[in-house]
Amino acid sequence: MDDDSPVRELTLDECWDFLATQELGRLAFRLTDDVHLVPVNYAVDGRTLLFRTAPGTKLVGVELGGSVAFEVDEVDGETARSVVIRGRARRLEEPDEYRADNIALHVWVDTPKYFVVELAPDEITGREFSLHRPWRRIRPAD
Amino acid sequence: MDDDSPVRELTLDECWDFLATQELGRLAFRLTDDVHLVPVNYAVDGRTLLFRTAPGTKLVGVELGGSVAFEVDEVDGETARSVVIRGRARRLEEPDEYRADNIALHVWVDTPKYFVVELAPDEITGREFSLHRPWRRIRPAD
Repeated sequence: MDDDSPVRELTLDECWDFLATQELGRLAFRLTDDVHLVPVNYAVDGRTLLFRTAPGTKLVGVELGGSVAFEVDEVDGETARSVVIRGRARRLEEPDEYRADNIALHVWVDTPKYFVVELAPDEITGREFSLHRPWRRIRPAD
Repeated sequence: MDDDSPVRELTLDECWDFLATQELGRLAFRLTDDVHLVPVNYAVDGRTLLFRTAPGTKLVGVELGGSVAFEVDEVDGETARSVVIRGRARRLEEPDEYRADNIALHVWVDTPKYFVVELAPDEITGREFSLHRPWRRIRPAD
């Protein structure tokens, strides 16, 4: 890889390390022909992600069992990181729901959320970007 | 709506005002049966969003002309906002590409990006969340 490239691929371990530092991602899924996209609080459990959800579109999309995508990113000064997971999500049955109680799965919004969903990755890709944002530092003179 | 609810729907004007303050979103689209999700720099132009892209998966997803979704969010203290757009994206032909030069469409990563894509919303929904994150303030005693 070109050392001067502003984009660097993250290793798999770097992807998981990054995912463990974050709590907010975005879940994309299909319902019939439409693509849906929702913000989701998550936590890492082993080599899966868990999140809580109430009955609704998101859960229906999950239960249809199709491919989903999940993205987490962070902008930190002049560096951005983004990890994208593609895989399948499933609702955990009752005997496995305890897994969400054993990890730091913080739900940010205090509304009822009854079900625990597990996202098992088929593919993880992560990228680190060196940002080029001179307009953040330089203001035009009057 | 319940005044005590931790979730408030944003008006359409609030959604556009919010979109205009941000630069980074995530684009979800379909390629055959798979859902793809990528971070994208964008800018508002009228009642559309514009972004730049190089040839690749993202552009193919756009040119297939299916439904796409786009999400922008921000966490600010104990409040989070998220706006989701659903609509169709198209690559602008040469006579219209100048539109990207007239707005603050800053590309964060300095790699070649040849095409301008316009996302025209069919539907915009925005929500403001009052966050419930006591673990951010309270550390357990040793």
